[in-house]
Amino acid sequence: MSVPGECARITPILSRVGDKWTVLIILILSEHPKRFNQIRREVEDISQRMLTMTLRGLERDGLVARKVYADKNPPWVEYRLTDLGQTLVAPLFALCEWAAENCDTIDANAARAS
Amino acid sequence: MSVPGECARITPILSRVGDKWTVLIILILSEHPKRFNQIRREVEDISQRMLTMTLRGLERDGLVARKVYADKNPPWVEYRLTDLGQTLVAPLFALCEWAAENCDTIDANAARAS
Repeated sequence: MSVPGECARITPILSRVGDKWTVLIILILSEHPKRFNQIRREVEDISQRMLTMTLRGLERDGLVARKVYADKNPPWVEYRLTDLGQTLVAPLFALCEWAAENCDTIDANAARAS
Repeated sequence: MSVPGECARITPILSRVGDKWTVLIILILSEHPKRFNQIRREVEDISQRMLTMTLRGLERDGLVARKVYADKNPPWVEYRLTDLGQTLVAPLFALCEWAAENCDTIDANAARAS
């Protein structure tokens, strides 16, 4: 297996979809649409500013859609995955699963190396 | 699908393995062991310093091993994936494949949004 596609072409995309906050937000939204503070509670350790910026980037790339319920009082803002965003769930879930299974081994290796 | 494992636990690992240079280096080494300059030629646009730092991080995490052939003149340094590194190839290949298939769509979405 070498690199599918041209490195220079996919590198900018990888830096966006491989970003740790993006990975977690995509997986959390894969369950169902959610509101800002709900996402923030589930993505531990993310700041309000980072969540705002990451969601804006995902909207710009067409991976997440934002819906305003103006008839609510106060108005609601809900985020959901687009069809394109849904296609990213499987590869990101596999990466997260790998990280969850190997985090202890990696931490032990890093501790030994330091 | 929600997030496998605890967010706070896997986030540090994700930021390392989801890094764009890490993704490309792991896939390039999945073919066979390679020397520094060979890796640098194949990972377009990476600086010498960034390649050195990324390889050092991969070694520390136990994903890449480094072998010195001191009997060569000049001595050779070769990098290869460890068994743990090999287990990361499939999820990273899937992520790269997704990026290669969707980079045009994402660029078009981003252009429309700006």
